[in-house]
Amino acid sequence: MSSNGSVPASMSVSVLDGPGKLRQEDRPVPVPGPGEVLVRIASVGVCGSDTHYYHEGRIGSFVVEAPLVLGHEASGRIEAAGDGVDPSLVGQRVSLEPGIPQPYSKQTLAGHYNLDPDVRFFATPPVDGAFAEYVVHPAAFAHPVPDGLSDDSAALLEPLSVALAARSAGEVQLGDRVLVAGAGPIGLLVSAVCSLAGAEVTVTDVRAERLEVAGRYGAAHTFTAAEAPEPAPEYQVFIDATGAEPAVLAGMQRLAPRGRCVLVGMGADTIALPVPLVQGRELRITGTFRYANTWPLAVSLAGQGLVDLDGLVTSRHGLDDVEAALVAGAREGALKAVVTP
Amino acid sequence: MSSNGSVPASMSVSVLDGPGKLRQEDRPVPVPGPGEVLVRIASVGVCGSDTHYYHEGRIGSFVVEAPLVLGHEASGRIEAAGDGVDPSLVGQRVSLEPGIPQPYSKQTLAGHYNLDPDVRFFATPPVDGAFAEYVVHPAAFAHPVPDGLSDDSAALLEPLSVALAARSAGEVQLGDRVLVAGAGPIGLLVSAVCSLAGAEVTVTDVRAERLEVAGRYGAAHTFTAAEAPEPAPEYQVFIDATGAEPAVLAGMQRLAPRGRCVLVGMGADTIALPVPLVQGRELRITGTFRYANTWPLAVSLAGQGLVDLDGLVTSRHGLDDVEAALVAGAREGALKAVVTP
Amino acid sequence: MSSNGSVPASMSVSVLDGPGKLRQEDRPVPVPGPGEVLVRIASVGVCGSDTHYYHEGRIGSFVVEAPLVLGHEASGRIEAAGDGVDPSLVGQRVSLEPGIPQPYSKQTLAGHYNLDPDVRFFATPPVDGAFAEYVVHPAAFAHPVPDGLSDDSAALLEPLSVALAARSAGEVQLGDRVLVAGAGPIGLLVSAVCSLAGAEVTVTDVRAERLEVAGRYGAAHTFTAAEAPEPAPEYQVFIDATGAEPAVLAGMQRLAPRGRCVLVGMGADTIALPVPLVQGRELRITGTFRYANTWPLAVSLAGQGLVDLDGLVTSRHGLDDVEAALVAGAREGALKAVVTP
Amino acid sequence: MSSNGSVPASMSVSVLDGPGKLRQEDRPVPVPGPGEVLVRIASVGVCGSDTHYYHEGRIGSFVVEAPLVLGHEASGRIEAAGDGVDPSLVGQRVSLEPGIPQPYSKQTLAGHYNLDPDVRFFATPPVDGAFAEYVVHPAAFAHPVPDGLSDDSAALLEPLSVALAARSAGEVQLGDRVLVAGAGPIGLLVSAVCSLAGAEVTVTDVRAERLEVAGRYGAAHTFTAAEAPEPAPEYQVFIDATGAEPAVLAGMQRLAPRGRCVLVGMGADTIALPVPLVQGRELRITGTFRYANTWPLAVSLAGQGLVDLDGLVTSRHGLDDVEAALVAGAREGALKAVVTP
Repeated sequence: MSSNGSVPASMSVSVLDGPGKLRQEDRPVPVPGPGEVLVRIASVGVCGSDTHYYHEGRIGSFVVEAPLVLGHEASGRIEAAGDGVDPSLVGQRVSLEPGIPQPYSKQTLAGHYNLDPDVRFFATPPVDGAFAEYVVHPAAFAHPVPDGLSDDSAALLEPLSVALAARSAGEVQLGDRVLVAGAGPIGLLVSAVCSLAGAEVTVTDVRAERLEVAGRYGAAHTFTAAEAPEPAPEYQVFIDATGAEPAVLAGMQRLAPRGRCVLVGMGADTIALPVPLVQGRELRITGTFRYANTWPLAVSLAGQGLVDLDGLVTSRHGLDDVEAALVAGAREGALKAVVTP
Repeated sequence: MSSNGSVPASMSVSVLDGPGKLRQEDRPVPVPGPGEVLVRIASVGVCGSDTHYYHEGRIGSFVVEAPLVLGHEASGRIEAAGDGVDPSLVGQRVSLEPGIPQPYSKQTLAGHYNLDPDVRFFATPPVDGAFAEYVVHPAAFAHPVPDGLSDDSAALLEPLSVALAARSAGEVQLGDRVLVAGAGPIGLLVSAVCSLAGAEVTVTDVRAERLEVAGRYGAAHTFTAAEAPEPAPEYQVFIDATGAEPAVLAGMQRLAPRGRCVLVGMGADTIALPVPLVQGRELRITGTFRYANTWPLAVSLAGQGLVDLDGLVTSRHGLDDVEAALVAGAREGALKAVVTP
Repeated sequence: MSSNGSVPASMSVSVLDGPGKLRQEDRPVPVPGPGEVLVRIASVGVCGSDTHYYHEGRIGSFVVEAPLVLGHEASGRIEAAGDGVDPSLVGQRVSLEPGIPQPYSKQTLAGHYNLDPDVRFFATPPVDGAFAEYVVHPAAFAHPVPDGLSDDSAALLEPLSVALAARSAGEVQLGDRVLVAGAGPIGLLVSAVCSLAGAEVTVTDVRAERLEVAGRYGAAHTFTAAEAPEPAPEYQVFIDATGAEPAVLAGMQRLAPRGRCVLVGMGADTIALPVPLVQGRELRITGTFRYANTWPLAVSLAGQGLVDLDGLVTSRHGLDDVEAALVAGAREGALKAVVTP
Repeated sequence: MSSNGSVPASMSVSVLDGPGKLRQEDRPVPVPGPGEVLVRIASVGVCGSDTHYYHEGRIGSFVVEAPLVLGHEASGRIEAAGDGVDPSLVGQRVSLEPGIPQPYSKQTLAGHYNLDPDVRFFATPPVDGAFAEYVVHPAAFAHPVPDGLSDDSAALLEPLSVALAARSAGEVQLGDRVLVAGAGPIGLLVSAVCSLAGAEVTVTDVRAERLEVAGRYGAAHTFTAAEAPEPAPEYQVFIDATGAEPAVLAGMQRLAPRGRCVLVGMGADTIALPVPLVQGRELRITGTFRYANTWPLAVSLAGQGLVDLDGLVTSRHGLDDVEAALVAGAREGALKAVVTP
């Protein structure tokens, strides 16, 4: 193992014991194994899934049965390198891709490593996340970032990756008219990347005030449900970042023949799919599950300043303040809380 | 106009005046315009949509407000050729593609002429269909068939085209495991074409007796709802030919990651789409609307004897017996009724 | 026929009788047939193919055997409308798509109308082009343009369409690194549209001075053959707009695994395809032939001012000066000559 | 490590020291590491690349500088399992996929593990191949085969994989007309899999006698260069398994608009690509490099008896007879020599 010699023996982590039960504890700093690096965490974005685990102690079939460290949008600096890892990487600032697939699984070899059923993903029981001073991580999933990219932006390459996966799933390309439902962090980033891809983007949200920043994230047009225009089949792509059935159904109505609908937002267990519409216009509906092979592009776009990730951060918290970070999203005007361990 | 000289002045047609109100009437034999041919109808398959119009007088927003001639699965022989049509085509046996798009519409020029909103389609108000002794039709949509292909088979290239469009939409290819729900004419033909495409096909139906013929249409395996195996995510493609929500939902559960679901069957207005499943496996759902560019392949497959279209015919009726043809599908063991005008 | 009443009886056209033999003559103004419009030509761009016909009297198997009107990049105003055309179109400024396919041909119905062997294309023997005061044209291929778009820009939607077709063929999308060889009008427009599609574009040319304007057409980087960097396999897409074998071979060497090569430039009859490279990196090579379904996007991009078409015009000529227009391209710094009939 | 206890300490291998210099030597039986299995080799097919190394001592930039074990089409039985491998696999008959990519390389994670520049491939300097009594191999690349599949057939899943990759690259599907050049083992297997995929296959070869078996491998039609019909653009796909420029150029001439050309055969360093043809028909040319993710389908097809791999074997040799095996391919009527260590 190579290191810069300054790694302490113990560290502080934030632990969730069950619904609403959060505490800090000291743990030994882990040691990187072969192919792994030890990363001093610099910034961790709070995701709706973290908040959901905090409130409910579960997401679907994933149940917090043992103490769990939350946080999966993370950046930091490599402090030590395990066997087989280039020692010159020590000191490198990195963005952590949170899901580690089995190397030779069927889905990994097919290029869909996000769908590997045995993927290990930060903050998904029983795998601990990044609300901690240190984590070990495979070097291949610790992506170097340029100096000019802030720690927060490096952490938020994770939601940017969600947006990039949505764009890919929707095959958004030059000249497409794209409708995005939901002006939260994911919807805004979807808008930004679709705009960079040459699309003409419209963002809609139920709350007018959330649409105010959409212009900074590539939206050419916005409307709220209240001011919605007549539903004309004018969009090539509809990307839902709300998870709300009314938004999804309204968006589908606006798709042109052969239009593509991408379901990114989580929430609704079912939506009442309008079969005659899907058939009559030969619509195509798909859902995305996280992302695969997105980090290089995310690093490039953010590194060139083409997406304003820092602009999403609306509050910043220490490791002793994770609870506040987890509930910050409910506040008016909040977009993204960040924890700095 | 070129003709063989034997065309009479008037002909008999079967007319629907409203729900359950069917009658025969005499009409003048139409004259083919430029680019058109006059076809003596030889065989017309009865489709569920014909039966639906007969019982209900409407399908969705299409309402029978004036007398309507039903029937859109038709074959016959060219008896006269309009201006600009090769006169040597007189005498040629043909299969009629029932939907005629606007030539230079956006959807036509994009290769999706079935989605042209101004398409004129047999037996869709106010366009008359083929339960008639003669029809005029654009020559480009009157596809020559080989001598060895029966009149009934030539008519049934239309449902075969529906099946080919489903296979294309599902991108069914060599090695795919494909599940087909519904062992009626469309489901059986979907099974046949997917099998010809190198897929391993399983057909399911609620009625065991309908599965008995599935082996003749390419199915390697069958099961009924009652004997359904554990739902394992083992199929690359699921094609629904039932339009029934329980069948669709059960089929989706059996799709592997990145699996494709094709909704062909009509019936349900909505289905309760399981969003977490669609996202977690990144499923892709699409619907098909009729077909485009399928006839050449349909002619080729049927002409080579690779699909047994004649085997679908379970009753045959004259133009004075259309009512019986329209209700024949409800009988035990019925697959396809054919009208011979 | 609807018109504004001011159409004269005769008009002036520029006629090519053979290599180097150009003259003006008076012809009757043509009358639009059903579905056609009469267009007063406002601007016609000169293409390399026009110059080639002028010098050689042929391009490959297309030989000028009778007097031929050149010019296929044209814009103008509708002066009269034939039967079946909305009369309110009279007065509308339009960009003319120069290739008219057979409506129901196999390639047209498949969405590849540019590949219809019976397409009628401006200035391709025996079809006359647009170096004329008036032309008749199918209304469906006379695309309305917004007021803010200049006549020259409206004419140059044609080379923009060539560039859009190249981008489509290369499947250029967000994040791709794209290498474009050739900084003439086509190369510059390819650079512009790839940049709009979210690609990072590098333009190369043998002449350094031609690269000076590349930055205005989306290029992030440029290099000349003399200053070429080490050939690293770093590009996802290479688009050749030179037709020169050395440029094509150098570009292919720079393609990453699974890279796409698009051959747009005409010139070389053959290139020595490096088979082991194509196999070892699984490269994909394709050529484009004109374009299909590009005008709506071209109108939109140019109408929004996203591509500077006027900036390509380096000389302007009257109908009595077509010869000068045809040879203008050989001059240092020339990009695009325009004829204003 | 789990084993069945019967593994000897040393084994015999066939070693190539340089052009034409082949010898047997004893080596220690290797020990499987974590994730690996020890396989007793049962059958190894001889490939043209083996013969090329034998005669020339190199293939392109791959030079035999140290003693090299040839052979990469191999089957056998698992005799021992390393750490982390299911011990119940001991005794399992397997087909060996010869190329092992780096687990988390860019190309591997993108689903193109064959293009990983650091792939380790049997019998490619400096990696030893399978002309040996035993090899160790990652368990994930030792694919179980059913009892009914012979050892030879299990070995020949490797050339079958080459054919499957060619079909995928050509996107061969139901109804395509496919032309295959070359009736050697690869050409015949390409014909077989394209036929199973629903294509109508024509096989061509310069030698009429080689075409005699093509019918057993799915070919519907055959012709020799001497009896070649007029070149009509009638094929959707052309797959070259000759590597000979005249065959490639003749095949391309026969492609329909938008046709796909797949270069599988190795031999020509360059071919004179006809640019106007590629552009005028918008052809797409690609090359394949080995294969990725093909074994499951290869096992399935061969296991069901849908491809007659045993029928390719025209001579069988012991480990003391490898030289004869390597030159057997030159004999009249030879298709595939097999070594049984």
